[in-house]
Amino acid sequence: MLRYVPAAELDRIRTLDADPYERVAAFADACRLNALYMIERAGSGHPGTTFSCLDVISWLHLEVMGDGDRYFSSKGHDAPGLYAVLTALGRLDFELIHQLRRLDGLPGHPDVAATPEVVTSTGSLGMGISKARGFALADRALGRSGHVYVLTGDGELQEGQFWESLQPTANQGLREITAIVDRNLVQSDTWVDRVSDLGDLEEKFKAFGWAVAHCDGHDLRMFSQTLKGLRSDERPKIVIAHTRKGGGVSFMEPEENLPRTETALYGYHSGAPSSAEYEQGTAEIEARLNERLLVMGAGSVELVAAEPPEHRSAPKERQMLVKGGAYERAIVEQAEKEPRLVVLDADLRLDCGLVTFRERFPERFYECGIAEQDMVSQAGAMALAGLLPVVHSFACFLSTRPNEQIYNNATEGTKIIYAGSLAGLVPGGPGHSHQSVRDISALGAVPGLSLIEPFTEAELEAALDWAVHNAPGSVYLRLVSVPWALGFDPPVVDEVVSGRGTVLRPAGDVLFVAAGPVMVAAGWHAADLLAEDGVEAGLVALPWLRDVDGAWLAEVAAGGQIVTLDNHYVTGGQGDAVLAALAAEAPEAASRVQKIGVTEVPKSGGNDETLRAHGLDAGGIRRQVLERRPVASPS
Amino acid sequence: MLRYVPAAELDRIRTLDADPYERVAAFADACRLNALYMIERAGSGHPGTTFSCLDVISWLHLEVMGDGDRYFSSKGHDAPGLYAVLTALGRLDFELIHQLRRLDGLPGHPDVAATPEVVTSTGSLGMGISKARGFALADRALGRSGHVYVLTGDGELQEGQFWESLQPTANQGLREITAIVDRNLVQSDTWVDRVSDLGDLEEKFKAFGWAVAHCDGHDLRMFSQTLKGLRSDERPKIVIAHTRKGGGVSFMEPEENLPRTETALYGYHSGAPSSAEYEQGTAEIEARLNERLLVMGAGSVELVAAEPPEHRSAPKERQMLVKGGAYERAIVEQAEKEPRLVVLDADLRLDCGLVTFRERFPERFYECGIAEQDMVSQAGAMALAGLLPVVHSFACFLSTRPNEQIYNNATEGTKIIYAGSLAGLVPGGPGHSHQSVRDISALGAVPGLSLIEPFTEAELEAALDWAVHNAPGSVYLRLVSVPWALGFDPPVVDEVVSGRGTVLRPAGDVLFVAAGPVMVAAGWHAADLLAEDGVEAGLVALPWLRDVDGAWLAEVAAGGQIVTLDNHYVTGGQGDAVLAALAAEAPEAASRVQKIGVTEVPKSGGNDETLRAHGLDAGGIRRQVLERRPVASPS
Repeated sequence: MLRYVPAAELDRIRTLDADPYERVAAFADACRLNALYMIERAGSGHPGTTFSCLDVISWLHLEVMGDGDRYFSSKGHDAPGLYAVLTALGRLDFELIHQLRRLDGLPGHPDVAATPEVVTSTGSLGMGISKARGFALADRALGRSGHVYVLTGDGELQEGQFWESLQPTANQGLREITAIVDRNLVQSDTWVDRVSDLGDLEEKFKAFGWAVAHCDGHDLRMFSQTLKGLRSDERPKIVIAHTRKGGGVSFMEPEENLPRTETALYGYHSGAPSSAEYEQGTAEIEARLNERLLVMGAGSVELVAAEPPEHRSAPKERQMLVKGGAYERAIVEQAEKEPRLVVLDADLRLDCGLVTFRERFPERFYECGIAEQDMVSQAGAMALAGLLPVVHSFACFLSTRPNEQIYNNATEGTKIIYAGSLAGLVPGGPGHSHQSVRDISALGAVPGLSLIEPFTEAELEAALDWAVHNAPGSVYLRLVSVPWALGFDPPVVDEVVSGRGTVLRPAGDVLFVAAGPVMVAAGWHAADLLAEDGVEAGLVALPWLRDVDGAWLAEVAAGGQIVTLDNHYVTGGQGDAVLAALAAEAPEAASRVQKIGVTEVPKSGGNDETLRAHGLDAGGIRRQVLERRPVASPS
Repeated sequence: MLRYVPAAELDRIRTLDADPYERVAAFADACRLNALYMIERAGSGHPGTTFSCLDVISWLHLEVMGDGDRYFSSKGHDAPGLYAVLTALGRLDFELIHQLRRLDGLPGHPDVAATPEVVTSTGSLGMGISKARGFALADRALGRSGHVYVLTGDGELQEGQFWESLQPTANQGLREITAIVDRNLVQSDTWVDRVSDLGDLEEKFKAFGWAVAHCDGHDLRMFSQTLKGLRSDERPKIVIAHTRKGGGVSFMEPEENLPRTETALYGYHSGAPSSAEYEQGTAEIEARLNERLLVMGAGSVELVAAEPPEHRSAPKERQMLVKGGAYERAIVEQAEKEPRLVVLDADLRLDCGLVTFRERFPERFYECGIAEQDMVSQAGAMALAGLLPVVHSFACFLSTRPNEQIYNNATEGTKIIYAGSLAGLVPGGPGHSHQSVRDISALGAVPGLSLIEPFTEAELEAALDWAVHNAPGSVYLRLVSVPWALGFDPPVVDEVVSGRGTVLRPAGDVLFVAAGPVMVAAGWHAADLLAEDGVEAGLVALPWLRDVDGAWLAEVAAGGQIVTLDNHYVTGGQGDAVLAALAAEAPEAASRVQKIGVTEVPKSGGNDETLRAHGLDAGGIRRQVLERRPVASPS
């Protein structure tokens, strides 16, 4: 059973007639219980970073902010903590705590369109000071007043935009901005100072013209005094709040479980704790909360038990493309064959499937931190100097943050491999900052770049092999990270042939064209459904996202409708590439193309419900095919 | 007549038996003469920034660098100076000095693919330290040794990537990197400290772990001693070289001609001096060079006279869309009507047509410096707070550097107008870093964003009016900056209708579809040429780059071939949007689409020759149409 603090109990704690520091500390612990509940119920979230800043967020909301003031988190993945506070205050419907990362619930990262009480959408790092500045300048322009509080991570400070925004904010004398650095010392993979050490933050912030102060971010008296001490300063202000990642849940605190070795990884950045850990964490927080309540002369907290949601057992035969799967193995195999191959990573060693490589080839592994532009430009120079750089991040970040740098590299005619994981609509939990459904478009016109998305582990291995040994230029590998069941036995695809794919079911009235496990599986199941409607549907797994052999595809399609399935915005995705190839090489077939894909900003939700909401599950695809009857039937 | 220093004279100066500081100063002045010659002959270039760093570049190449060492300029627009040095040293064919910014000559910015003696392609700012780091790490990995010298601008330091790259470079102990800041105090528009003051650079660099020293960048003895003083330092090194923009040509030096007022603009950042200025500058440099030679006991320099190239007088009836033209006026008119409208600029006030706005509405003008990510995220917050931000930069930068920030804003459902000027292949002089032929693709999948490219001043005014008052969401205005003659009298288009355009010539065997003055003019002239081949061609000016009314267009085309003309890569441009709209709304017509556009990295050259080289002049379009015979003729 899961347990949470009900609204009435939160009200009771929040309004205790007691020392405010004790009261808010208790409130923060109550919010910790609910944040942990939300994450456990959702099955994913970011507990470590949520807990490190919950005391700070609670103090700001209960004791500091007034009308016209704004608070937002630049890092954004501490959203469960913010939601716990806002639901406790009644600013969000309390029942939403049961709906973290569910459709029409609370998105994995703050989303102002889905949750108007949130001030701005975050989750893409480094934008916080710029946004705070925009709010402050707009308020001045509109004759409003109000203070802007922005929380940043410490790993996040590796992003160049943070430094880009600092000096101009000081130059403009934006004293109404207070930034708080959640200095929890640990970023996604491990210790910040092992990923990309930032050195003396205070010295740097001062050099950029900000008023700077330090405090213990779990000591509310000290935090409060620090804020007060800065109040009269005419400069924008920055508080370095020293916190503990996972703070308040002992086994999540890195001093206990993250040895300072080369390879140790922090275990509680993302995901949900095990059931046993959940119990232990809840018990620990509850006990501390009750102690605090006792000190204030108040009764113990009464938690409400809740059934955990049914987690369907995952199908066994899932394509494991990235972490611990095909990519994790294949990049090591390629490095063994190709001595010029080096790996660059942006603090996603674990999630991009690079743990094995890092252990095996430490001297060929370049950890760049959350600094994608720096990473990509480095790769450009490495390639000019004779290396074969393979560059990693999540697809959403890799395709957009260093977009100009990738183009700059492309104009130099060298070979670089870009591996973008977490591509597509799912996992739907993290929300649209992480759902990469624009990367094909953002990189599609980069000259000489091949874009490939494999649908099986074997095809991924073949694609990487092709990229390393045979590709004429640079390659973007678009990788679905979430393990995915195809629902059928795929043939072994052990080579990729330029522009062509694998016919999984022969074309009939319709031929589905899809890349990657999610859309190939959806196409397969949609074909099954359409058979019930008397529509015969074929399926081709086509890994090429831009360079399509149109003549071949037209032949495969025979005279049937060609329906492209994009795990991407329908604009600028594989469907447009198919259409363009047909228009050039088999024009008549271009009149038989229907493009299906994402048409609005991705929703945050469970994987199945997210696909369904966007009409990209088998049923949604069937419906869209039937809505547009085939223009021509096969002869 | 123009004049240059011939190769033999450069050899004589370079090998004089004299004090090296005097000798190299003379050599640098000889290179100044040739750089000025190149710029004047090309009709464009960046004289101010070329002259400020020529002494430094000369000293490095003549007295410091050896085998395995690398030098490159991160700012890149000082290319004429580098070319003057490399041609003088025989590392580039001397005759190339007559071919700056000409096809197959010397590109406007360094391009390693076109000019292999250049170390890396630059022109997009802020990438230099990252690239230096990539070279140094690759050299270490490959067992090579060599020092990397990288020159940066001082305005350039406003880019976040510069700061993103600093600390990790220090952490890695890359002592083989020396950065030199060309501290000439003036950026594109005006004084750096008036655009976005960087404060105490030395303090900042030290805080990021670099060894820092200062010197006069025109005093070679001091520069040399400064380099030597840093040599044994184990840290990466940075020399702040205090220089004068336009240094060595008195009337280009800002102390003389750039008053410290709110509105003063520097006159010699880009472009070419007038004939009289050319004469004056040449005489001044020549006199100083001869003085230096006299001191060394050497004879005066003998310059070679060269005919200036024929500059055809520009046609009178040119569409002036940006600077001093339609946009310059229209943004002011809109601001008068819409009080929420504010303007954000990234140090391109002059080139983006914002001088009048800045004078008229100083309190609604936000100068952000060369900090596009910070600018765009600020705009996002301003929009959330109730303003209507209009965000400006060159299209190449605006669509790519803050690509993720634009998407982040888009997910918030606010309205922001992005105005990207200098769009398309021309001007061809600056080279591919500035030729924006990927912006439609890079932004094409941003949800809710309308992309529009007007072809006349009137259509631009209508498009901006629509964007401000009627657009349902955000808008990207794609603007050709170079004044352009259509070659025919366009009808007055005083409104834009969603998805539709203006039929300029009725469809025949062929219907050209184009946006913007360059492609509309090319389509018009191609239609004239095709008439001689017996092919009847129509032309529609369609400003919509993504949201196309396919049914309307199919009707306009009747049964003819639909030929899209993209001033953009053929992938991801307007042609793909046309194809997608037809496939959805008039499928049969999708089989009659031919897409013409840019198919390789843009070449740097004169405007006409660049269009011709890419097959986008009237003749090239005619050829491509005839190569693909219409699939169907009109009944």
